[in-house]
Amino acid sequence: MNAYDIIKKKRDGGELSKEEIEFLVKGIANGNVPDYQIAAWAMAVYFQGMNERETTDLTLAMAHSGDTVDLSKVQGIPVDKHSTGGVGDKTTLVAVPLTAAAGVPVPKMSGRGLGHTGGTIDKLESIPGFKVEIDVAEFVQQVNRVKAAVISQSGNLVPADKKLYAIRDVTATVDSIPLIASSVMSKKLAAGARGIVLDVKVGKGAFMKDLDQAFQLAQLMVDIGFKAGREVVAVLSDMDQPLGCAVGNALEIEEVVKTLKGEGAPDLTELSVTLASYMLLVGGRVGDFASARELVQKNLTSGAGFEKFREMVIAQGGDARCLDRPQDYFRASLQVSVPSPSDGYVTDIDAEQVGLATMRLGAGRERAGERIDHSVGVVLRRKKGDSVRSGQALAVIHANDPYRLETARAMLAQAYRLDQQPPPKRPLILGVVTQDEVIRYV
Amino acid sequence: MNAYDIIKKKRDGGELSKEEIEFLVKGIANGNVPDYQIAAWAMAVYFQGMNERETTDLTLAMAHSGDTVDLSKVQGIPVDKHSTGGVGDKTTLVAVPLTAAAGVPVPKMSGRGLGHTGGTIDKLESIPGFKVEIDVAEFVQQVNRVKAAVISQSGNLVPADKKLYAIRDVTATVDSIPLIASSVMSKKLAAGARGIVLDVKVGKGAFMKDLDQAFQLAQLMVDIGFKAGREVVAVLSDMDQPLGCAVGNALEIEEVVKTLKGEGAPDLTELSVTLASYMLLVGGRVGDFASARELVQKNLTSGAGFEKFREMVIAQGGDARCLDRPQDYFRASLQVSVPSPSDGYVTDIDAEQVGLATMRLGAGRERAGERIDHSVGVVLRRKKGDSVRSGQALAVIHANDPYRLETARAMLAQAYRLDQQPPPKRPLILGVVTQDEVIRYV
Repeated sequence: MNAYDIIKKKRDGGELSKEEIEFLVKGIANGNVPDYQIAAWAMAVYFQGMNERETTDLTLAMAHSGDTVDLSKVQGIPVDKHSTGGVGDKTTLVAVPLTAAAGVPVPKMSGRGLGHTGGTIDKLESIPGFKVEIDVAEFVQQVNRVKAAVISQSGNLVPADKKLYAIRDVTATVDSIPLIASSVMSKKLAAGARGIVLDVKVGKGAFMKDLDQAFQLAQLMVDIGFKAGREVVAVLSDMDQPLGCAVGNALEIEEVVKTLKGEGAPDLTELSVTLASYMLLVGGRVGDFASARELVQKNLTSGAGFEKFREMVIAQGGDARCLDRPQDYFRASLQVSVPSPSDGYVTDIDAEQVGLATMRLGAGRERAGERIDHSVGVVLRRKKGDSVRSGQALAVIHANDPYRLETARAMLAQAYRLDQQPPPKRPLILGVVTQDEVIRYV
Repeated sequence: MNAYDIIKKKRDGGELSKEEIEFLVKGIANGNVPDYQIAAWAMAVYFQGMNERETTDLTLAMAHSGDTVDLSKVQGIPVDKHSTGGVGDKTTLVAVPLTAAAGVPVPKMSGRGLGHTGGTIDKLESIPGFKVEIDVAEFVQQVNRVKAAVISQSGNLVPADKKLYAIRDVTATVDSIPLIASSVMSKKLAAGARGIVLDVKVGKGAFMKDLDQAFQLAQLMVDIGFKAGREVVAVLSDMDQPLGCAVGNALEIEEVVKTLKGEGAPDLTELSVTLASYMLLVGGRVGDFASARELVQKNLTSGAGFEKFREMVIAQGGDARCLDRPQDYFRASLQVSVPSPSDGYVTDIDAEQVGLATMRLGAGRERAGERIDHSVGVVLRRKKGDSVRSGQALAVIHANDPYRLETARAMLAQAYRLDQQPPPKRPLILGVVTQDEVIRYV
């Protein structure tokens, strides 16, 4: 068996055997298959696809290419959550405490931001003292004590996926449904949870621009999870504009607190509550979605979700005072609004453009490993469908550098589209895929 | 402009601009575009193709990615010849002297063998003393004096093609008509000749298995040559079985001599005469094919072609005595025949299998740079369509190592197919493509 023959077989539309896929994944992980062969194979997969069996085998092989997290000592059914990536997406930090407040354990490993999207770990690090690097034993202990822990991916998890993804990222082979599915699911399987809720973003600010393709991806990931003995629900949600109002690390923590106090933006609140409800369902806490949603809503209204978030922050060494007085902790030196050039309705906010503007302010990274400024970012004052008068603020920029501020201002002005008519309404939740059913809301 | 966008554009079926192609080729040559991006791009081209304009731009950019050979001091119209690669293909060494004997200058740069195909340079080096590394000034002088010189590619010719080809070779992206055409033609354009005759091999032992695709490739190369101001003729010839009888370096030199003395195998003689005739035509020596052929045939019959070969060997330092008494110079220690297992007709000889058997004997290389044994090889005693009795020799193996001999014997026995009925006849010359017409013989 050799990589050349595997590439050629896929190029010619053949179905790769389990052994061939395992050979390739092992070679990717240990460096025996060189980058150029990985790239050629990925492009062949882009064109020829992989069937469900091949994709499942790829996922399992990648999941076992390095360490896996042992969650057997977690009491209850451990539940995980994953988003395919969006701008302003802080749902993890709202949904995890809401889920944990209902008694479902959530051992969550998250990543850092890259490019136009932020990362949960970066957001948490804007809280003074918050520790994201915790070993697995302590992680499990915290989950048993607090029911929630959000830490940085540790150990040598899914090395094959890391390598493959790094190559796909620079060879225009990211947009392949089987490759996306296996990348996401290999990480989730290695992370060890038994229930998994996926948030599949659809729209201009997401990988998946097309709804039908997003449903395909969701179905595939749910099926792979089932074959690996996990219960998976995929929620499809709109990512045509940023989620909520804040984009930038500390600003997003502030919005998380507001949302957990019941004063959040409707879209962020709605999606977080929906995801937490499915997390209760896959965690076996309740038997149906309506009861799950009722319980989550109760924990939101009562403040139990917020108290759970505070408890988790304290457990991980964070200074919880900043959650009550964010303005004393999180402020960048310059705050400047972006005024509307005319009267009208906001018909579009280009999420990628907002993400890039925030990155330019210093909130994100162009390259892995770069330092970031936690205090800077953007707060959207008008979202899609809102009316605005000329001169009123579309958004407020928080910056520490006047030059970067100007760059971001120009980018934000371009990100907004205005018109005399309000845009057609599009629901936030576009569909749900479970093992048993596919629900389409559009 | 960046490589990622170029890969993505081609992946999505876009047409690359001249600037994009030049950017890519420059990056391939100077190492700025990494191997994995080259591989992904090549696979995208495999699937999406390139139009004639893109292929011409790629060819020209690669031709100019390094040094080019200045043949302006050659008297007359310098003519070159290229074969897309076959087993037992020694037509260069027959056609070049026949062309030069008619007064047309042939400054020819050739390559070494790799894998199952041999290389003209290796064959010439089996002649004691023969020098293949000659600088361009001396090369031109010899061409003006002798009308023929065959040397090893020198200097930094087509570095972009070398790099791209090395990557295609290990990523299953060789079989792409625009990539094959640009690779062949970039080398020919850089080598400087004004008239070019291409021998496009078709059949199981060749890149091109399919006749229609071979015609497409031929047409594309002729068109690219025309756009670059060269006159190109492509001859399509059968490569279902090895050409001639000898496979192996010194054994092929012996067969060249025999052929130039008018005692060669019919297929090798016919193809060499045809190629030489078109070389006279593109060299402007005669006005039509019939006259060209008559002149070549005359030089074959008279021995003028053989004398020209001897003259070239002497000019390049070779010991010409071996041409007259090959058995004293070229013999391996072991000669063993492969007997026929039954009575019947030879219906097939797997050219690739014969090439690989010869490589295993030590006549070729698995990896570039390996030393080879010039004396070993195979002489086919029966070719396709020949009748044979059980126990009669199908082929004779020339070896210096008993173990390798056994391996080669098993491979050769497998390469032959016998049947009670003779196979259908297929012409050797399948077609010709010139700027003005396409002739199909099948």
